[in-house]
Amino acid sequence: MRGRFISLEGGEGAGKSTQLKRLAEALRARGLDVIETREPGGSPGAEAIRALLLQGEDDRWTPEAEALLFAAARADHVAKTIKPALERGAWVLSDRFLDSSLAYQGGAWGLGIAQVRALHEFGSRGFLPDRTLLLTLPDAPDRARARDTEGADRIGGRDAAYHAKVAAAFEEIAAAEPERCRTIDASGTPEDVTSRLLAAIEDLL
Amino acid sequence: MRGRFISLEGGEGAGKSTQLKRLAEALRARGLDVIETREPGGSPGAEAIRALLLQGEDDRWTPEAEALLFAAARADHVAKTIKPALERGAWVLSDRFLDSSLAYQGGAWGLGIAQVRALHEFGSRGFLPDRTLLLTLPDAPDRARARDTEGADRIGGRDAAYHAKVAAAFEEIAAAEPERCRTIDASGTPEDVTSRLLAAIEDLL
Repeated sequence: MRGRFISLEGGEGAGKSTQLKRLAEALRARGLDVIETREPGGSPGAEAIRALLLQGEDDRWTPEAEALLFAAARADHVAKTIKPALERGAWVLSDRFLDSSLAYQGGAWGLGIAQVRALHEFGSRGFLPDRTLLLTLPDAPDRARARDTEGADRIGGRDAAYHAKVAAAFEEIAAAEPERCRTIDASGTPEDVTSRLLAAIEDLL
Repeated sequence: MRGRFISLEGGEGAGKSTQLKRLAEALRARGLDVIETREPGGSPGAEAIRALLLQGEDDRWTPEAEALLFAAARADHVAKTIKPALERGAWVLSDRFLDSSLAYQGGAWGLGIAQVRALHEFGSRGFLPDRTLLLTLPDAPDRARARDTEGADRIGGRDAAYHAKVAAAFEEIAAAEPERCRTIDASGTPEDVTSRLLAAIEDLL
């Protein structure tokens, strides 16, 4: 039987990485074969592209070039890691996937959600997760701003606006695809959040 | 005054590299500032992507991932090298540009010329050369096949078909944009060919 593909999405500080590990352990405890992966990266080719994306100066790439690199990395990740794992029956949990590109590059950077999505249609034939879990915290933009204003080289005000745009774009995407995307309250104890995540994929088990 | 952007295109063995140098010298002899560049590459970011494209196994990238990487490299090449040079008044001569992606990836690989062009619309807002010079040899597919059958690991028949598809795609592109694209007979002496190239850009000088 084909496995299931679950992506975890959300802004900075929502606890995606911690929850991905906890969710993987909970699924393994049910006897499932589970792969943990991430974006950008998740396959040798995509990790090489990740290095290009994360190295160098802030203005190393134009926003458009960066969106194309993300789409190329995702095409490789899907073809070389995700689809082979699903075909052998494994579950795949990814820390970020398409919706991060839609929210950060399409929404907050202003490239357009439809335009960034078209790159995914081209690169990966529109391949989507069986379920996307969007972790949200009501005060996420404020938290991001609080962190940013501690740094010397960044403009707190602009960054708060940026994080608010990311959050708004994630909500717009989730609202447009209610069957695939579930918004999960990320407040409370880690145990509480993991319980909510499991409840949101119960129908896939 | 803004400079001019000229791309040289064509299949393997048509003499693009030699003619690019000869054309650059001829334009410099007229007092122009001339930049020689190439694709994939032509800027630090694009050269880093070129290394990803040229290293590794034949099946390292899916055709779609490779097309996205070419488009990302081109976006960087346009933004970091070509446009700044044109704005300071230089002429830019590039060994391959968009039309190679359209012919090789869009046409011969079957990804679709319109689909590959859409990546350029996204990445570089459809930026085009002032003139594209397509070097053609009537027996180009036969030459490519003659070279291929000397190699041990390639299938002469398939490669001849592939090169014929590339040539047909280049001709289709040139026919669709007669103002931008000029087909140049690449047979005869190097001096003959350079004269034809100069005549095909005379109106831009």
